[in-house]
Amino acid sequence: MTRLRFRISISLDGYTAGPEQSVDNPLGIGGEHLHDWVISLAAWRREHGLEGGEVNENTEVVEEEVANIGATIMGRNMFGGHPGPWSPARPWNGWWGKNPPFHHPVFVLTRHPRPPLHLEGDNVFTFVTDGIISALEQARRAAGGRDVSLAGGADAARQYLRAGLVDQMDLHQVPMLLGAGERLFEGMTDLGDLRLVRAIPAPGVIHLRFSRQ
Amino acid sequence: MTRLRFRISISLDGYTAGPEQSVDNPLGIGGEHLHDWVISLAAWRREHGLEGGEVNENTEVVEEEVANIGATIMGRNMFGGHPGPWSPARPWNGWWGKNPPFHHPVFVLTRHPRPPLHLEGDNVFTFVTDGIISALEQARRAAGGRDVSLAGGADAARQYLRAGLVDQMDLHQVPMLLGAGERLFEGMTDLGDLRLVRAIPAPGVIHLRFSRQ
Repeated sequence: MTRLRFRISISLDGYTAGPEQSVDNPLGIGGEHLHDWVISLAAWRREHGLEGGEVNENTEVVEEEVANIGATIMGRNMFGGHPGPWSPARPWNGWWGKNPPFHHPVFVLTRHPRPPLHLEGDNVFTFVTDGIISALEQARRAAGGRDVSLAGGADAARQYLRAGLVDQMDLHQVPMLLGAGERLFEGMTDLGDLRLVRAIPAPGVIHLRFSRQ
Repeated sequence: MTRLRFRISISLDGYTAGPEQSVDNPLGIGGEHLHDWVISLAAWRREHGLEGGEVNENTEVVEEEVANIGATIMGRNMFGGHPGPWSPARPWNGWWGKNPPFHHPVFVLTRHPRPPLHLEGDNVFTFVTDGIISALEQARRAAGGRDVSLAGGADAARQYLRAGLVDQMDLHQVPMLLGAGERLFEGMTDLGDLRLVRAIPAPGVIHLRFSRQ
């Protein structure tokens, strides 16, 4: 069964990005520290073409989470760049350079049509303008029996969470405050069918897994 | 050394009470479920004069937290009742009946003077009008070498947290959303010298302990 899996780092006060997000500072003020625990890992660095890094209790968690993913869905804000229609004059091809770390089909939720973007390393970005259900169906077909990753951001995640379409949610809770920014659960009052099934304390982070019951 | 210890239940989205708090519904809509994990415990029920209840991994955590407390500080909202000056015509003596569960001196932060309130079982409520430092000094003296408990609510807790006066903070994080209400860390952007020192997953709750480094 192809599941929809969502993983995100979140502060103790519920933010997944700090205030004043911009192209120059996509994680907002202070938001980069939500990811300190992961970017220090050898597993993450290797995945992103870098050497060195640590091996600790977080390694197994990350390796399990990035395994068995056949397609990714993300929101327009996570893909990044300017708002509004795509600009042929200033083409925005994502944050990740010529060879993004996905290496499988990626579906970007947007209201603005755009032809598919082919980058190196089997990275194909398809721009989906007809909603989250369509994106999920396309991603499931493209995943070839593996799972689909919901990469974020918060707004895209909330749309899938509210629709009850997320099968597994991994929150990486970092014991810090951001005080302002993007709140993952803004406006939500329940988690639907998702229930906490495990909690793993690890260096710099607590891993909370929710699954559909 | 007499430490100031703070413990509170908090939702995944950072609320310590739900929306629309009132005398009839002091925890706000849905807020009572933040405490399901603790009121089901035999240890909690015994402390509140009730029989029955469960013994599980939460028991040891609660018993440790309520041990070695010699005095309590709380905000006016937690003591409860009407806002504004105290009404001799409608005296509000707290939520806890004739024999509250503290059994030691309690210091209530308020702007409105009131004589000390003596209830059964060594429960003496002193109303402190000259600020959080004064309340802490009085509580430390009254604690007789034991620790001081900061009982809340959120506003009183934030005043002590911002002032860097909390030595230990135990957050009981409940994997549920409230969506609105009282946010513990509203307006705060850091935890000062407090660092996560342990995280214990247990039935219905994750116990996060922060200590001054």
